[in-house]
Amino acid sequence: MTILITGGAGFIGSNLVNKLLSLQKKILVVDNFLMGNLIKVEHPNLCIIKANISNYYEFLEKIDKQKHISKFEEVFHLAANSDILKGVKDINVDYENTLNTTINSLKISKKFNIPNFYFASSSAIYGDLGKNIKEDAGPLLPISNYGAMKLASEAVISAARESFLKNAIIFRFPNVVGPPASHGVIYDFVEKLKNNNTLDVMGNGFQQKVYLHVEDLIEAIFFIIKKTQNSVKCNIFNIGPDDDGITVKEIAENVVLNINAKAKIKYGNEDRGWMGDVPKFSYDTTKLKMLGWKRKLSSRDAVLLAIKQIIKEK
Amino acid sequence: MTILITGGAGFIGSNLVNKLLSLQKKILVVDNFLMGNLIKVEHPNLCIIKANISNYYEFLEKIDKQKHISKFEEVFHLAANSDILKGVKDINVDYENTLNTTINSLKISKKFNIPNFYFASSSAIYGDLGKNIKEDAGPLLPISNYGAMKLASEAVISAARESFLKNAIIFRFPNVVGPPASHGVIYDFVEKLKNNNTLDVMGNGFQQKVYLHVEDLIEAIFFIIKKTQNSVKCNIFNIGPDDDGITVKEIAENVVLNINAKAKIKYGNEDRGWMGDVPKFSYDTTKLKMLGWKRKLSSRDAVLLAIKQIIKEK
Repeated sequence: MTILITGGAGFIGSNLVNKLLSLQKKILVVDNFLMGNLIKVEHPNLCIIKANISNYYEFLEKIDKQKHISKFEEVFHLAANSDILKGVKDINVDYENTLNTTINSLKISKKFNIPNFYFASSSAIYGDLGKNIKEDAGPLLPISNYGAMKLASEAVISAARESFLKNAIIFRFPNVVGPPASHGVIYDFVEKLKNNNTLDVMGNGFQQKVYLHVEDLIEAIFFIIKKTQNSVKCNIFNIGPDDDGITVKEIAENVVLNINAKAKIKYGNEDRGWMGDVPKFSYDTTKLKMLGWKRKLSSRDAVLLAIKQIIKEK
Repeated sequence: MTILITGGAGFIGSNLVNKLLSLQKKILVVDNFLMGNLIKVEHPNLCIIKANISNYYEFLEKIDKQKHISKFEEVFHLAANSDILKGVKDINVDYENTLNTTINSLKISKKFNIPNFYFASSSAIYGDLGKNIKEDAGPLLPISNYGAMKLASEAVISAARESFLKNAIIFRFPNVVGPPASHGVIYDFVEKLKNNNTLDVMGNGFQQKVYLHVEDLIEAIFFIIKKTQNSVKCNIFNIGPDDDGITVKEIAENVVLNINAKAKIKYGNEDRGWMGDVPKFSYDTTKLKMLGWKRKLSSRDAVLLAIKQIIKEK
């Protein structure tokens, strides 16, 4: 029994792979390597193949070639665009990489009779709903194509659960930080400060969001799977640190402090970093807490740790 | 200034065309004629072209050829699959005809700077949420690919409103009845009774849903557009008759009564007609009522009138 991970070579995927290997699971990672391959381990239980998941026939052909795999137990579907701004400018980006990857992962699940489907959704599906958003909040009016195509993915997974999947879990992720970084606010700030004495920040710095450390995220995912394993409906969980988050200004100041204390920070005028950015965001994780889960790190602690970890990687 | 109607040759589209012609509007209908062409009028203000809207380049090319049109004022996007069961069996059906048509209509709106986008969404986006559903209800877990791709369409329209549209309105339709019929429960029953003395009903007949007459629907659409014309957000409205609906059993009995009183009705055992069917459904239309709108016909009256109208058409 093998676990299929789409987008498994990315930031969250590579952390998930480490965790699953520690549990003695057999893994097939399929990734287009657009963000590189962040998996640094080699292991007899781990097979990594390159495929464009947004092309169904290519995806199918590559999986069909894995003759050593007799049966898949579950899919972790993580493959998605991670550049929200790029997706706002060109709808095809999220259409291909965030939605079509989901549609094709569902087709594969149907074809190979994979019963369990776990999906990395996003707080972006809530759009600009403000604070303390619960899983049943509405109306759902995403403000980026990324958020829209994550919501579209949720919808089609829900329909598939009704039709052929046994169990589907939708994990709504907040901003997730930690190593190995390939994108995100900390990574961007660190990159910008490499050869610069000025840090240009998109937006006025007062954007305030919740951040979860990737280690906490992975723990939460496995906790939820365990607690809902006999469920026969489509489960949705907000995963987050249960606090009010941290401002972009604080993140910028801490990155500067850790890299080049003399660097100047230059803010924009807008309340948001870019079109499609949600300026203030925190959500309600009562449902997850009620299951008995506790995060280790607050938004602030997660960011401070991730800054040190990401700088160390460079 | 021309109005673009995608799927304008269908059931609701042809009613919309009549209304817009009566308002002296110029109209371009684009339709794939999969359900035929239900527009029976010819008019100098009306241009009808055939195109596969789920193919962007074909859609664009056909619109580009309309050299007499200098500017589009608004899009009514109605093009969609209407066979929910077919879409449950094959995800490509709604992916192509319900979602890709939306994506491409948005691309056309962006390319031609069309400011206003009106979308025929569906109560199917709510899945199996039960009774008295408000516009902000959640979680949204559609149980058919049709519902999923309508929700996906809403999501990407919302993102487009944030990016390039001036005004977007999402109309969530209930079951709509009336002439000219090409599908739907009444049409199916009438067709089945043509050469049969037995009416086979899918499901146990206790499915209970709300039905709106197409004339009421069209009035509601124009009422909402007028009342929200200065709005600069993505507006969502449930459109419905504000009652508890009518059972499939009552519809079947009334069709039999009108066609062949001696025919027998044979029910299935399931609580729903097919996978993806929502057995009990009514929703809250307070938001629309608060604007000042009133329907003329209840679910029952709408169905009874539509039965007579559809039989007369045959």
